[in-house]
Amino acid sequence: MTQYMYRFGGGVADGGDAAKGNKNLLGGKGANLAEMASIGLPVPPGFTLSTELCARYYEEGESYPPSVNDEVAAGIAHIEKVTGKNFGDANKVGNGPLLVSVRSGARVSMPGMMDTVLNLGLNDETVEALAATSGDARFAWDSYRRFIQMYCDVVLGLDHGLFEEALEIAKEDSGYFNDTDMQVDDWKKLVSIFKKIVEEEWGKPFPQDVNEQLWGAITAVFGSWECERARVYRRLNDISASWGTAVNVQAMVFGNMGDTSATGVAFTRDPSSGEHAYYGEYLINAQGEDVVAGIRTPQYLTKVAREAAGAKPLSMEEAMPEIYAELAKVFDLLEAHYRDMQDIEFTVERGKLWMLQTRSGKRTAKAALRIAIDMVGEKLITEDEAILRIDPMALDQLLHPTLDPKAKRIVLTKGLPASPGAASGYIAFDADSAERRKEMGESIILVRTETSPEDIHGMHAAKGILTARGGMTSHAAVVARGMGRPCVSGAGALLIDAKAGTLRIGDKIYHDGDMITIDGTTGEVMEGEVPTIQPELVGDFGILMEWADKGRRMAVRTNAETPHDAQTARDFGAQGIGLCRTEHMFFEASRITAVRQMILANDEAGRRAALDKLLPEQRSDFTEIFRVMTGLPVTIRLLDPPLHEFLPHAENEFADVASAAGVGIDVLKQRANELHEFNPMLGHRGCRLGVTFPEIYEMQARAIFEAALDVAAEKGAAPIPEVMIPLVGTKGELTMMKALVNQIAEKVFEERGNRIEYLVGTMIELPRAALMADEIAEEGAFFSFGTNDLTQTTLGVSRDDAARFLTHYVDKGIYARDPFVSLDIEGVGQLIEIAVNKGRATRPDIKLGICGEHGGDPASIAFCEQVGLDYVSASPYRVPIARLAAAQAALRKG
Amino acid sequence: MTQYMYRFGGGVADGGDAAKGNKNLLGGKGANLAEMASIGLPVPPGFTLSTELCARYYEEGESYPPSVNDEVAAGIAHIEKVTGKNFGDANKVGNGPLLVSVRSGARVSMPGMMDTVLNLGLNDETVEALAATSGDARFAWDSYRRFIQMYCDVVLGLDHGLFEEALEIAKEDSGYFNDTDMQVDDWKKLVSIFKKIVEEEWGKPFPQDVNEQLWGAITAVFGSWECERARVYRRLNDISASWGTAVNVQAMVFGNMGDTSATGVAFTRDPSSGEHAYYGEYLINAQGEDVVAGIRTPQYLTKVAREAAGAKPLSMEEAMPEIYAELAKVFDLLEAHYRDMQDIEFTVERGKLWMLQTRSGKRTAKAALRIAIDMVGEKLITEDEAILRIDPMALDQLLHPTLDPKAKRIVLTKGLPASPGAASGYIAFDADSAERRKEMGESIILVRTETSPEDIHGMHAAKGILTARGGMTSHAAVVARGMGRPCVSGAGALLIDAKAGTLRIGDKIYHDGDMITIDGTTGEVMEGEVPTIQPELVGDFGILMEWADKGRRMAVRTNAETPHDAQTARDFGAQGIGLCRTEHMFFEASRITAVRQMILANDEAGRRAALDKLLPEQRSDFTEIFRVMTGLPVTIRLLDPPLHEFLPHAENEFADVASAAGVGIDVLKQRANELHEFNPMLGHRGCRLGVTFPEIYEMQARAIFEAALDVAAEKGAAPIPEVMIPLVGTKGELTMMKALVNQIAEKVFEERGNRIEYLVGTMIELPRAALMADEIAEEGAFFSFGTNDLTQTTLGVSRDDAARFLTHYVDKGIYARDPFVSLDIEGVGQLIEIAVNKGRATRPDIKLGICGEHGGDPASIAFCEQVGLDYVSASPYRVPIARLAAAQAALRKG
Repeated sequence: MTQYMYRFGGGVADGGDAAKGNKNLLGGKGANLAEMASIGLPVPPGFTLSTELCARYYEEGESYPPSVNDEVAAGIAHIEKVTGKNFGDANKVGNGPLLVSVRSGARVSMPGMMDTVLNLGLNDETVEALAATSGDARFAWDSYRRFIQMYCDVVLGLDHGLFEEALEIAKEDSGYFNDTDMQVDDWKKLVSIFKKIVEEEWGKPFPQDVNEQLWGAITAVFGSWECERARVYRRLNDISASWGTAVNVQAMVFGNMGDTSATGVAFTRDPSSGEHAYYGEYLINAQGEDVVAGIRTPQYLTKVAREAAGAKPLSMEEAMPEIYAELAKVFDLLEAHYRDMQDIEFTVERGKLWMLQTRSGKRTAKAALRIAIDMVGEKLITEDEAILRIDPMALDQLLHPTLDPKAKRIVLTKGLPASPGAASGYIAFDADSAERRKEMGESIILVRTETSPEDIHGMHAAKGILTARGGMTSHAAVVARGMGRPCVSGAGALLIDAKAGTLRIGDKIYHDGDMITIDGTTGEVMEGEVPTIQPELVGDFGILMEWADKGRRMAVRTNAETPHDAQTARDFGAQGIGLCRTEHMFFEASRITAVRQMILANDEAGRRAALDKLLPEQRSDFTEIFRVMTGLPVTIRLLDPPLHEFLPHAENEFADVASAAGVGIDVLKQRANELHEFNPMLGHRGCRLGVTFPEIYEMQARAIFEAALDVAAEKGAAPIPEVMIPLVGTKGELTMMKALVNQIAEKVFEERGNRIEYLVGTMIELPRAALMADEIAEEGAFFSFGTNDLTQTTLGVSRDDAARFLTHYVDKGIYARDPFVSLDIEGVGQLIEIAVNKGRATRPDIKLGICGEHGGDPASIAFCEQVGLDYVSASPYRVPIARLAAAQAALRKG
Repeated sequence: MTQYMYRFGGGVADGGDAAKGNKNLLGGKGANLAEMASIGLPVPPGFTLSTELCARYYEEGESYPPSVNDEVAAGIAHIEKVTGKNFGDANKVGNGPLLVSVRSGARVSMPGMMDTVLNLGLNDETVEALAATSGDARFAWDSYRRFIQMYCDVVLGLDHGLFEEALEIAKEDSGYFNDTDMQVDDWKKLVSIFKKIVEEEWGKPFPQDVNEQLWGAITAVFGSWECERARVYRRLNDISASWGTAVNVQAMVFGNMGDTSATGVAFTRDPSSGEHAYYGEYLINAQGEDVVAGIRTPQYLTKVAREAAGAKPLSMEEAMPEIYAELAKVFDLLEAHYRDMQDIEFTVERGKLWMLQTRSGKRTAKAALRIAIDMVGEKLITEDEAILRIDPMALDQLLHPTLDPKAKRIVLTKGLPASPGAASGYIAFDADSAERRKEMGESIILVRTETSPEDIHGMHAAKGILTARGGMTSHAAVVARGMGRPCVSGAGALLIDAKAGTLRIGDKIYHDGDMITIDGTTGEVMEGEVPTIQPELVGDFGILMEWADKGRRMAVRTNAETPHDAQTARDFGAQGIGLCRTEHMFFEASRITAVRQMILANDEAGRRAALDKLLPEQRSDFTEIFRVMTGLPVTIRLLDPPLHEFLPHAENEFADVASAAGVGIDVLKQRANELHEFNPMLGHRGCRLGVTFPEIYEMQARAIFEAALDVAAEKGAAPIPEVMIPLVGTKGELTMMKALVNQIAEKVFEERGNRIEYLVGTMIELPRAALMADEIAEEGAFFSFGTNDLTQTTLGVSRDDAARFLTHYVDKGIYARDPFVSLDIEGVGQLIEIAVNKGRATRPDIKLGICGEHGGDPASIAFCEQVGLDYVSASPYRVPIARLAAAQAALRKG
């Protein structure tokens, strides 16, 4: 029988080595609790219901296997034994009743996404027992009302507004301002009001049976895995629906039992800068949720931090020096154990420290780099481990511009530097309009009093996030860091009236649609748009890239078709161009008329006349790119899109275009009509153009070779053009096009009296090409996997049209991830493997690369390493990401 | 060193068993000449240059490997030795100079497509030698002028009109009417005029060196393989460009050496009816080209045939009884040797019979059936061989309607019954307009004085062909039979003025665009349209089908979505439905409004309301089809096309549709706009509709099960619905859709208190589905290969858009055949094999079939047998073709 329950605490850690640290089984939180308990840290006892139970629960139509009942009972017995308290105990003497928390714990942290119930085990009788045994009736009744409120929200699904309203009324009636003003009898009265609300809204009295309470909470946590906001979070964070969540049931400890109690969160190093200094926040006489919810502004953990911020409330180091010292020892122990920076939750209950959670701390890319490099220096980890520690996608944060320090800026206010980077955008006051306006092409700064999980899509759409409330560990801050969005949080000077659409800062008023700039590295909020500068890719970044380059096997090229992009990419370390599309050059204003004349020509002679005008232009394109890439390979794809893409489509353009091209409007319309295609993706494009209009490819080939010889003469070192024939599906196409390219090459070499090295190869972007790769390799010196089109044809999904069902598919788990973002390794991957094997069988030294957008996606890059490609090609800003991902892939392959 | 030259005749047949009868190597004509020579028939000696040399010639940029020179010289020496004549011999005593013919000979016959040069070896000196040694100066000079004329046309590419004009002028000047009136001196004078024309047009004198002549002719024949009309013929007849042609060089024999000479063509059985009677035509004192060119109307071979036709000129049987008797013996020998009906060319030179060619005779489908069945009766071949003898596609001729014998008909005239079947259509006088008007949807009868290879595309476009001149073996007759087009040839009463656009028959005048009917089985030409009736599929057809059904392993189903089609197919022997598309039902006028309301609904409730209206309609569709297919499997594909296909596209339709659907025109336009797709083929269709709008599939599933239970109750035997989920690419889609179908099935079964058997499976029409077939088979009880879409996605070719390059691709040999007509076995076939193997690995009893249009194509069916599919599904009229092709495939697999 499968074991679904794993105990921890009190010297017990179930499951042995198979369970220890097994996040897939126990979830992140559960695995760490078990591990902390096993290394002797003070963890309140509890048990974890595994992620396997979650999967089983959904498989069985949301019900449990019968054995789980006994397992849960055994788990509760374990907690009772360790704590000496009993679940549902109504005795007013003794240790008091056992209260437990019930929390979710997925394989990876999903902050704020899923549900938690605290203080479970309280009812009309046990509350009295708690009051008696704790000697604090006010605390007992406050806990009971909190429990009812939370349980009704999370488990019963009642409107939490009703309870908040009742509390507000109660306070008003008594003339109180804060919750802390409420006295025992006030709480008692409120509890009876709460219970009435439950009966009216739910139709049944609030459950008094503590086991019913427990099962209700367990089921609610499992159920929250499939709630809408969890699904959205999973989609945005590439978390598979099949992973499921674990449930952790744990003895409650209380940070709100007076002034010797406290609760806090801490990082063992600064998660923003990576500095090796404890970093955290705490609140005296509070429950943990109070800190992360951003309702009370928490106090600093260390004296240094408090002083740096100029804050008055005492740091924990100052207010509770002994406990702080104990905590600091725990920090060091945890870092040494996990060999990584930890994100920790703790509670002090009447002077006793309890560790509630530890996990690898989320950090900015900058911090990740610094921590990894510092830890190598501290000999905690090796260089290879350091490489593996950095999420390649996180580098993105470092690669984009920051504010120009010399630029003038009108600083309006300063909040917390919650997530680094700078962003300018138009103000949006709610997530929906942020998303809508982003789709219209606007840059958006989402401005909210505070954010909640309902705002995720708006945060994703925004360039940056600005909140009036909440600390460095508030929802806005954590999520923004995860997304790599700049964020300034807790900017208390902001007065936001979302309904009126106004943001007031001091005496200035900004509206929906005004431009502001935020700097998440400093916390500054500025008026208008502030210019930015390129980041310097030195220091920690440079060191890591150096290590990565030592570790990787695959070359990294770039997809670029302008000299500017080529230069950016080369600066980022690109080792050549993997895809230079030539059609972008055709669209330039100075050329489009000649392109259209070519298309409108009645015969080959007419086409050649127009192409003659394009030749010098195209040659100069290549000359500039070759100059940047001297000595490096440059893969140039001959014309790919269907010709109708170059003709106008809107009615009002026809007249202008016709007169520019020197034809009648009727001729133009007729030709556009002739060229119209039902499925242009599968139409007259790629080498099909070269086969039917060889003169186009002849012109392009000539431009390439003339430019290469020019640059060779000028620089003394030639580029190595790799002429790529697109959309080949059968060897015959490549044979014909290669002959054409070779013929032009020989002509040009003869004319110039000089030769250069070059290759002719093809893109593998059709399933047939992959299947026939053995034959095609007879002609092709290289294959470049065009995984954008290969994905479209293999899956039968048009990227342009997929939006309507693709999110649906990812939400329902039909696709684990958007296959246009991360390669469909199961399906498309098979074709790539087939092509690699067949291509190498025919031509062992065939050059193999990938030039689809997957070439910049770390998971896809890992696959490329697996099948042994020679290089990946990524967009310029993805080049460093690809370098790191390629190194990680090589290290993991070993 | 590769041997390119193979000698035959005079007791020699080079190459042994490897070459004997090897049409791939020697071409059809060459292989048969060698074989005839080897069994002792009187064949003029000669040699064949192999198809391998043709391939080599093109590979080497149209030049020859050096060794060929010596080989050709050796070949000429062989002919010289056997004939005792010398090539280029100018002696006026002795055997006279050797003259040779140079002819093409591809693997399969391509009548009239490629070039031939006769009388080669004549020059100003050898003509005198020929005159002297033959004793017939007129013949010698006539041969010389014929040679110059032919050589200039075929080898030098000069305008043949110039020579014809000169001949006409010469005749006019002398007051002659026929060529036969020309005397020796007239021919001599004409030869010198011809030579002047050559010098003026070609810039050099006519080549006098006989070896130069020979090489010129050989190169011209190889060159003719790539001429435009040969390419068109290949495309229409699925002949691969890579096959190449052989060249046959053979000693000339002359049927035009006076009245003891003759030339003729013959079939050993009647190629039209299949009757076991010699059948042929001959001309006294003529060269072979005179018979097939249709210029002189030839005489009958046998007395019976002459008498049946009421013709006066004596038959060969009567005019040359001894030679005829010798010929008849040769016929029997050849039939016994080749065990098939032969098509023979012969020449009688001064009383001596020479066999010039034999090959399997082209025949009508009717004749093919009769001959095969007769030969089984004669114990010449076995039943299995009989099955293999019939080209399945030829059955098409028998399956289409013939004229209703009871219908009134106004017979205008009668010609030769050159190709069987009846056709009605509008008159077109030239091939181009026939093709153009056919594309506009007109049925066309092509009416020509005679046809030539330039007319092929018009013949292909026409429903039938009518000519005023030419016999049963004329170009029109042979080509029409090959294409399966009805043809009436040699209808002498026709007076055609193509320029004026009139056809005069007696005192009636018809114009371009008038309707006529021809009956190629009787030779009748009728006014207007004559009604037709269904063919009776009994007699020879029935016998062959019975034999085929014994021989085949795969079942044959049909693609049908109307009761009428289903019934037709069942009458043709279909064993169920392999593809019932459900969207056709949605387009019916009575339903389209409800369909549109469904699409325009704002929410699921609105969609369900519209679907409720469609349910009874869809149920009755299925009821009718199930009635026809009681007890048989019926595969029903749930809705497949994108929803925008059901909305109007033309501006003028919007208002009507909007008011019918009860929405504003703006709502309609906006929705149409929202649904617009760039690549609908890869868009929101197939099961993607079912995933996003499950209510549509729910309605369809309900209609299927309710209808099946209705028919089960009514007939006592239930159909076996096979519910097919389209466009599956990943197992999850099928899991979800299967659960939906099963749920509806259970509901309906419960409501009705009765159950039926059914299956849920999927179409394999995406490369990913084939690659993931192991997983998909976990859910799918059957796979049906949707090879139309699988071809589109695997090749990346949109069938709707491919016309612009596909013919180009086939012409250039990039595709051997149109991959939408005959399965791309190399590429798409790999995916099918992968899917078959993976599917069976998971589910050994999985049902496998094909429902793309390839299911009716014999070559594709052979592949289906090869990979072990359980059934093929074809359109109703292709069902008998599929039955025969499946039997052939099974027999060939052995």
